[in-house]
Amino acid sequence: MFLQGNRPSGNAIVTVALTFLTSSQAILIVWSKRAGKYEYSVTTANFLVETLKCALSLAALARIWKSEGVTEDNRLSTTLDEVIVYPIPALLYLVKNLLQYYIFAYVDAPGYQILKNLNIISTGVLYRIILKKKLSDIQWAAFILLCAGCTTAQLNSRSDHVLQTSLPGWIMAIVMALLSGFAGVYTEAIIKKRPSRNINVQNFWLYIFGMTFSAIAILIQDFDAVMNKGFFHGYSIITTLMILNHALSGIAVSMVMKYADNIVKVYSTSVAMLLTAVVSVLLFGFNLTLAFFLGATVVSVSVYLHSAGKLQR
Amino acid sequence: MFLQGNRPSGNAIVTVALTFLTSSQAILIVWSKRAGKYEYSVTTANFLVETLKCALSLAALARIWKSEGVTEDNRLSTTLDEVIVYPIPALLYLVKNLLQYYIFAYVDAPGYQILKNLNIISTGVLYRIILKKKLSDIQWAAFILLCAGCTTAQLNSRSDHVLQTSLPGWIMAIVMALLSGFAGVYTEAIIKKRPSRNINVQNFWLYIFGMTFSAIAILIQDFDAVMNKGFFHGYSIITTLMILNHALSGIAVSMVMKYADNIVKVYSTSVAMLLTAVVSVLLFGFNLTLAFFLGATVVSVSVYLHSAGKLQR
Repeated sequence: MFLQGNRPSGNAIVTVALTFLTSSQAILIVWSKRAGKYEYSVTTANFLVETLKCALSLAALARIWKSEGVTEDNRLSTTLDEVIVYPIPALLYLVKNLLQYYIFAYVDAPGYQILKNLNIISTGVLYRIILKKKLSDIQWAAFILLCAGCTTAQLNSRSDHVLQTSLPGWIMAIVMALLSGFAGVYTEAIIKKRPSRNINVQNFWLYIFGMTFSAIAILIQDFDAVMNKGFFHGYSIITTLMILNHALSGIAVSMVMKYADNIVKVYSTSVAMLLTAVVSVLLFGFNLTLAFFLGATVVSVSVYLHSAGKLQR
Repeated sequence: MFLQGNRPSGNAIVTVALTFLTSSQAILIVWSKRAGKYEYSVTTANFLVETLKCALSLAALARIWKSEGVTEDNRLSTTLDEVIVYPIPALLYLVKNLLQYYIFAYVDAPGYQILKNLNIISTGVLYRIILKKKLSDIQWAAFILLCAGCTTAQLNSRSDHVLQTSLPGWIMAIVMALLSGFAGVYTEAIIKKRPSRNINVQNFWLYIFGMTFSAIAILIQDFDAVMNKGFFHGYSIITTLMILNHALSGIAVSMVMKYADNIVKVYSTSVAMLLTAVVSVLLFGFNLTLAFFLGATVVSVSVYLHSAGKLQR
């Protein structure tokens, strides 16, 4: 319903997949801790995520080369002019991903889910500033409602703890929201700059720089640990699942950026978050709360206002 | 900020007073019970509310006659054509007020506060149908948000009980919302029909019929109890406060209808409800919940959208 572009149905699937993946991220990160701390090096996990995404992009390209042959748009070789901008989002994502491991010293997983809704506001603001695409006043109001509605839907009896988050926790949450919003909007700008270029090539170059920065992070932060205990020390099934999850959701995000935009990404994941909750109720017999109904109502009105408030062009 | 009309500042005071009065209504009703039941006859209390409002209107008129003399607009005598419509809202209010005493068999006071937000929707719908005043699509969206926002702001850890309200409880809540909305909109139509007529005269006639219907309700429902135990059996300080509260808030509602309209009434009481909560925090050191902040945000956006969505005339 939100998706416009070349392949709407494929994107709808990608967008829904993205939400299911992101909604399980926080739980997997918390589960991957033992006795309150990470036994594995988080920088190595991040490196493996980048490597896996890079490998998956190459595998997709190999299939395309086989069926369509190598063309100007899907060849891997590139120019300095094309790749020079890729290190920027790669660096932003790296910092954000590393912060994500440490914010849990200040908030718990449900609290983090709530603070993550700050991403909605930061994405809207940065989308406006960087891509210079205008949202109407009604659409801005809709965006604030989307943030409030998503948060309301996620309220539970312990949510008020979030208000007691300490200052470093708040600062980390806000910095993460800005990094995430900036990285998202910047990536969209890069990917959209060359519309005919195959997304897997664009992803490949994005992830190459992701791998490079992750490798540097290992050297800076976990060099001794990796040397003494080994690269895979402390890894478990959960760690593996978490890496797989991060890699797949990263690729899904890129797809949405290519064929839609950051606003669609934010709306789609918000609506899909609500649908996921409803599906969970049907499958697992959870109870929906009054807060969920209220949040879902606000998000629905927001979706309506976003389309009703479209600027006349 | 919402008030337009002849006496904006006086109305702002009336509107804020109305909210403080209505917010304490449910608590007083529950306090006036002993061991889970009303020791006094609720019909006699209702009769006294109507009588008190009638007396207060007459007292106000007496002052006006003294200062301005008796004119065409403030004289008490009237025509059949003017008064013939007054019994309708009087009857609706009577039924609604009596239902209010019995709904607490199905919901508790915080639950009732939440269900009362259905009034917002019913008022909007009936305002449209009966007064034939159009709201724009954006203003409708704003109205749904107002209802969702107010409910969110009132959420507490036990609010989910409301979802377990039994069918009779829901039916009563919906019927009460419709009666309340219909009576409000109808009263506005009557009062506005003669703009120059003094509001105290209009109130006097409204309350005369209120007294009549309340008296009939006593005869039908509590005749034996009043005859055997006396009219004031079971009355307490709380009962007296409750009657005073209902009378004053009834008069405040009429004032808002005269100089503004039902939509202003709904918005003003909603915003004032939020302000009351903030003031309570400052005065009594309560904690504001995350739900309150989210609800207040949604209500604020609703206020903005109501004015941004004004129909071009």
